[in-house]
Amino acid sequence: MSAGTVAESTRSRLLTTALRLFSEHGVEGTSLQMIADELGVTKAAVYYHFKTKDEITEAVAQPALAELEDILDAAAAQRTRGAQIDHALAGFVDLVVRHRALVALFNSDPGVVRAIDRTLQGAENFKLRMLSLLVGPDADTSARLTVDVLLAGLALAGGSPDNTDIDDDTLRERLIEIGRRLLGRRRPRS
Amino acid sequence: MSAGTVAESTRSRLLTTALRLFSEHGVEGTSLQMIADELGVTKAAVYYHFKTKDEITEAVAQPALAELEDILDAAAAQRTRGAQIDHALAGFVDLVVRHRALVALFNSDPGVVRAIDRTLQGAENFKLRMLSLLVGPDADTSARLTVDVLLAGLALAGGSPDNTDIDDDTLRERLIEIGRRLLGRRRPRS
Repeated sequence: MSAGTVAESTRSRLLTTALRLFSEHGVEGTSLQMIADELGVTKAAVYYHFKTKDEITEAVAQPALAELEDILDAAAAQRTRGAQIDHALAGFVDLVVRHRALVALFNSDPGVVRAIDRTLQGAENFKLRMLSLLVGPDADTSARLTVDVLLAGLALAGGSPDNTDIDDDTLRERLIEIGRRLLGRRRPRS
Repeated sequence: MSAGTVAESTRSRLLTTALRLFSEHGVEGTSLQMIADELGVTKAAVYYHFKTKDEITEAVAQPALAELEDILDAAAAQRTRGAQIDHALAGFVDLVVRHRALVALFNSDPGVVRAIDRTLQGAENFKLRMLSLLVGPDADTSARLTVDVLLAGLALAGGSPDNTDIDDDTLRERLIEIGRRLLGRRRPRS
């Protein structure tokens, strides 16, 4: 392995470990020293990759947020309104299910959301794009509230520690079904 | 006014002020001194009523939580399943709407939920009772997830700072409508 590959693999192990410790102790309750101890490296080795805990928090969330941007782009590129809605809903649910631990952290720790708000153009931008995809840009109060309930509800339910016993495929299928019901869409033809 | 009435009114002003400061600065970012300053009293006067910030947090949330218990009791006492569901849903939405500021605080500050978990029999008990009222005690995965999405979604949407422009009556009506759609219930006859 080259030095670059070693550094990359340490960085990746560091992020996995950080997410686990954040989930157990909260971001607030996790120190760089704890991350170093858990990895069996020195605090200097952690500093080599990240200068602050905020940088680690952002890096932990970054892959999922980049995927979310891709999902929104792909959904917007669909030809029909129906396909846009289906794509945005299924993509969002799939993201929540695959990144359950991260979503749970989001739900329970406002510090994570604040850290992310600083890097990305913020949650507001994401919400506006989702709103436009799911109910159109000129949605009324009722449609706006439906999207609020949908996004918050699916993320909270998907990331809930009460639902860790549900396997990925079942969780994905059921949440998409609930989302379709909320949006008043019938089941897709199979 | 008797001394007792003065104390009661100070206590009540203290809780209103605490909720406002908690909403602005978070529970973590609010000190007993800040509450005293805002009220124009000494820190000793605050200590007369509450020894710790946790006691204040519990007292701020207590009236809404007591109402929630009453709603669950009243819903359970309804004769038909349909009436139980309607009562539980409408009661929950009404509570969220009337206590929006508190709900927003719940949503953004896990410290509040932890403080409350200690006094009441906890959020778990509330969730089980709601589950049993809305979808029955032997609900399958799909029904359990629906209730998760419903409770989290309605609370987050109702307490969201994005929705402060929606008046109470409209918000109440729309959220009940969304809840009924989620539960697969038709509109009630008018």
